[in-house]
Amino acid sequence: MKTPLHPDTVALNDSGDAIVIIDQTLLPETLTLISLKTREEVFDAIAALKVRGAPAIGVTAAMAYYLLARRHVLDSPGISFSELSEKMEDDRAFLSRSRPTAVNLFWALDRMQNTLRQCASSPVEAIPEELRCECLAIRDEDIRVCRSIGEHGLSLLHPGDGVLTHCNAGRLATVRYGTALAPVYLAEEKGISLRVYSDETRPLLQGARLTCTELHASGVDVTLLCDGMSGSLMRTGAVQIVFVGADRVAANGDVVNKIGTSVLACAAKRFGIPFYVCVPTSTIDMQCETGSDIPIEQRAPEEVTDLWYAKRMAPEGIRVYNPAFDITDADLVSGLITEFGILRPPYRESLARLAEKSGMLP
Amino acid sequence: MKTPLHPDTVALNDSGDAIVIIDQTLLPETLTLISLKTREEVFDAIAALKVRGAPAIGVTAAMAYYLLARRHVLDSPGISFSELSEKMEDDRAFLSRSRPTAVNLFWALDRMQNTLRQCASSPVEAIPEELRCECLAIRDEDIRVCRSIGEHGLSLLHPGDGVLTHCNAGRLATVRYGTALAPVYLAEEKGISLRVYSDETRPLLQGARLTCTELHASGVDVTLLCDGMSGSLMRTGAVQIVFVGADRVAANGDVVNKIGTSVLACAAKRFGIPFYVCVPTSTIDMQCETGSDIPIEQRAPEEVTDLWYAKRMAPEGIRVYNPAFDITDADLVSGLITEFGILRPPYRESLARLAEKSGMLP
Repeated sequence: MKTPLHPDTVALNDSGDAIVIIDQTLLPETLTLISLKTREEVFDAIAALKVRGAPAIGVTAAMAYYLLARRHVLDSPGISFSELSEKMEDDRAFLSRSRPTAVNLFWALDRMQNTLRQCASSPVEAIPEELRCECLAIRDEDIRVCRSIGEHGLSLLHPGDGVLTHCNAGRLATVRYGTALAPVYLAEEKGISLRVYSDETRPLLQGARLTCTELHASGVDVTLLCDGMSGSLMRTGAVQIVFVGADRVAANGDVVNKIGTSVLACAAKRFGIPFYVCVPTSTIDMQCETGSDIPIEQRAPEEVTDLWYAKRMAPEGIRVYNPAFDITDADLVSGLITEFGILRPPYRESLARLAEKSGMLP
Repeated sequence: MKTPLHPDTVALNDSGDAIVIIDQTLLPETLTLISLKTREEVFDAIAALKVRGAPAIGVTAAMAYYLLARRHVLDSPGISFSELSEKMEDDRAFLSRSRPTAVNLFWALDRMQNTLRQCASSPVEAIPEELRCECLAIRDEDIRVCRSIGEHGLSLLHPGDGVLTHCNAGRLATVRYGTALAPVYLAEEKGISLRVYSDETRPLLQGARLTCTELHASGVDVTLLCDGMSGSLMRTGAVQIVFVGADRVAANGDVVNKIGTSVLACAAKRFGIPFYVCVPTSTIDMQCETGSDIPIEQRAPEEVTDLWYAKRMAPEGIRVYNPAFDITDADLVSGLITEFGILRPPYRESLARLAEKSGMLP
């Protein structure tokens, strides 16, 4: 395996006063690291997709929560716990408006807020360190959880298999390993060769720009295709399995993921190819009964009409449909690969059992 | 209805020595007419997609056949019929290599060759005029046939319906009216309002650049979406019917059309939305038993990785899957709308009956 693009997609810098991320909007042209210190910088990085992918957004938000608490304590000597809590509630609300769909954002902010609450009787000066430990724990868990998803996913693969994926649920969507691509990276570590096919993923081309770039940098055999080509590719027999990530999974197993996922699932069904969704349990939202309960972000028409730095590709004044995500019905999903193993249909039952067992799902 | 973009997509100029086409690679930025006189110019216009769409390619090839014969007769006074036939056989073979999938190219060239053969006992100087009449007859038939397809398709529509289409099977793919868009134009003529949804159609964006442009110019309510968004759109209830064209239809009803069509058909099936293919009978190839017998053009990787005048969107050295067309299995097709009416499954039978009745299918 060649060197990956960069060690961690999201990290705290050594002095603990900034989040360092790869600006993913600049890939594949340049690998540029940027530092985020203010809540506006973090908000912008998430909203503008400089950092994206449900798990990476969660880790970024957790680190931001720590950074902002640290700044409040440093800037306001003698600040009380209730003053700090009030400021953090404002920061939490602000950050939670950066993107609506990926549940990890809310999950991570809630978890940091719980940690803060547990510090009610600690000296205020000690709180930033507690929060730093918690956001690093979230980071470490992300790495462990992704590796675990990778191991469970790997059990479904055979040497030489063709794996089709959509959008980017790889290293760049998490701290390391990825979710949908974790099985691929673990296979490479073990010397098992696979062929990966990456949907380009319009309109923002995360498949072409991110998945192809990170797999290619790691020496994985990867082929790029346009989103509408998946049926044609499946017909050739090149695809044995589909792995995708998710932004949120409902209690009945409906999957909300990058726009285009549901059409891919229809094609996989048609061609009898198993379709797996790779998710940390932090992406599962038991409070959403079905996919229809999950808010879907609508994005700007220009993403479709103007591409990236190119001339306009559609006439002026045209109406555009541009949701960022779609719903894949649970019955199209062969399994949900989590860090605790592979869940099978009916998902309402298997998810409820997992919630009981792990105590992790609300 | 507002003024259409341009009267005819393909035309002979007044002096009958050039084909005038809209250079479709320059849309939507500019409406540029170009003249084609030599066989190299015609070959390039077809191969580079300056003129595209199975019916428009057929008419262009027929007009080219006439122009080249006229040129041979003018340039070689006293040329014999067999010398002319030999030259035209060479020109026919040359032009037929411009694109492999759309059967109308071969159909039109064969029809012109038959006309030439029927002139064996005519004075050679009179032959160009015969060929001119034949290519204009092909053009006129295209207009009539498309209008007829439009009338049959219109019978399936209700006021306010949402029509989803892929690629461009509109005015720009034929001389006038289009195939898949003919019902839409006829509805507009009759004052019946529809909502049209146009897949952008990666990699070459014919939906965004051509379908949106021609519908918008004609005052039709049109919304652009990325190819992977069709499932999400269907879920909203906005789509009542899908109309697409085809590059070739096999004897069993399998449809070869622009890449992405088969995935759209899978999504339509999933959401219970009727999926119709609008084709002149000249697009039906009874000599191909199934879709697998139809050659599929593979195109350059740069179409996917470099978009249009933009910076590169995927890492250097990446492998690319880029077929121009895909196969939609006959069982996903609700009906084939031809100039003779709507054919229903089983297509092997309905196509065979049509072949017998119309005598048009080989």
